[in-house]
Amino acid sequence: MSKALLDANFPRLIDGKTMHLNVLEGDVNPRILSVGDAGRGERISSYLENLQIINSTRGFITYSGTFEGVPVSIIVTGMGIPMMDFVVREATSVISSKVAMIRLGTCGALKPNTKPGSIILASSSRFISQNYSYPVGPAYNLSSKVHSDPDLFTIFKNQLISIFGSENVDEGVDLTCETFYSAQGRKDPRFDDCNENLIENMVVEEPEAAAMEMETFKLLHLASTSKGKIAATACMIGLLNRHTQELMDFSKLHDIERDAARAALMALIRYPLDN
Amino acid sequence: MSKALLDANFPRLIDGKTMHLNVLEGDVNPRILSVGDAGRGERISSYLENLQIINSTRGFITYSGTFEGVPVSIIVTGMGIPMMDFVVREATSVISSKVAMIRLGTCGALKPNTKPGSIILASSSRFISQNYSYPVGPAYNLSSKVHSDPDLFTIFKNQLISIFGSENVDEGVDLTCETFYSAQGRKDPRFDDCNENLIENMVVEEPEAAAMEMETFKLLHLASTSKGKIAATACMIGLLNRHTQELMDFSKLHDIERDAARAALMALIRYPLDN
Repeated sequence: MSKALLDANFPRLIDGKTMHLNVLEGDVNPRILSVGDAGRGERISSYLENLQIINSTRGFITYSGTFEGVPVSIIVTGMGIPMMDFVVREATSVISSKVAMIRLGTCGALKPNTKPGSIILASSSRFISQNYSYPVGPAYNLSSKVHSDPDLFTIFKNQLISIFGSENVDEGVDLTCETFYSAQGRKDPRFDDCNENLIENMVVEEPEAAAMEMETFKLLHLASTSKGKIAATACMIGLLNRHTQELMDFSKLHDIERDAARAALMALIRYPLDN
Repeated sequence: MSKALLDANFPRLIDGKTMHLNVLEGDVNPRILSVGDAGRGERISSYLENLQIINSTRGFITYSGTFEGVPVSIIVTGMGIPMMDFVVREATSVISSKVAMIRLGTCGALKPNTKPGSIILASSSRFISQNYSYPVGPAYNLSSKVHSDPDLFTIFKNQLISIFGSENVDEGVDLTCETFYSAQGRKDPRFDDCNENLIENMVVEEPEAAAMEMETFKLLHLASTSKGKIAATACMIGLLNRHTQELMDFSKLHDIERDAARAALMALIRYPLDN
């Protein structure tokens, strides 16, 4: 570890780089596509020309380059809202202009009729967190709602429909879950998770629930508290339907991922970033 | 991505490996040292003989081998409680016996007299999470307390004191924070974080608060809900004192890390794992 500078509020390494993403001013472009999986990031980075790759020992990878001549960055976020928090705060800290950001992830689909392998757009998001003071209060909490930027959402949705067809693009309320197992309603007899009816209860509380995953809420929440600096939206590939337990055809995953990433990059370069 | 098997509760890749850590039965030993930083994991893996390294594209790295002839594993966790959740659940899912687990991390020290560079042992932990439904309720919540395994804690403390001297080993209540910036009381004028007096308020609510970091609570909470399978404790190197803003001498960090890792490995192999 390089020596950290004396700023407890926003520590930087001695070379001025942010402490966790390892980036400097100029390393991240204001149009950002974020993915969780390092394999996905590497595969879709082939869209970029003039590629620069910045690794960190904290699990983040930043690919910067151009797409159709416009500067963009692809950032590997890792999993969970703490990791998304690092990405949004540290990446935007080295960008002086406004920022447009799209997340491309995977999820479990929550609407009974959503076909596995569909793209699910998050028009808004709510957070499911475990209540660690239970039994004081319910075992899990569902937060209030934060919204996608409406313009970026519409541009992205149109790009997705033009590539996948409207029959393969859903939208609804994303439920971002604190963890993959307990907070997504998975049953594990080895732990006392108190999540027996979690999915059933959550879809009653949020009838428009369309997806369960682990990062989108934090992106939309930070954008909504960023004083206009960040416009954000997200989509996820539905790996399975949590009602029917039906899985997608995984042989098609890399093709879908590639096309969804292209739609995201097209939307990012079309979004007007006037400052 | 390999094709996932049809088990929505605990998905595995088609080769039987856990979905995120990429491990099979036999890949992880029942004595586990977890660290957040991949650089730290690589450095301290030099303690192990007969080393096997398992990477994943999700940010986890598992080093398995022997220490003084006893099988142990070192796992790079990444940051945040969702990542710790993956590590604890997936690593222990491929181990049939009881498990002993120690986390070695870094933190901000919260007691006014703690010297930066000290080792801070977590006798217990509480979780600070942002309330995303604010202003309904307070802006941040402090959970109830979970405890280290008392025997593993004592064995580890004795090892640390024998290496560092009691004057360099503190203990107290760890505060695990959902995020590094807002939930650790860092001020960022770019976002509406509603965390103006967070540290002051939290140390009033928890007078024994000794450390702020991002993973320990989840380890101790999962151990406490594991029906006796997992014994866990944690220590952190205090990078700075959050009251005085004094930083440690970072030229000593790798030495302290190496010695603390040795103490953890010594404690792990001494802890009786009778099943």
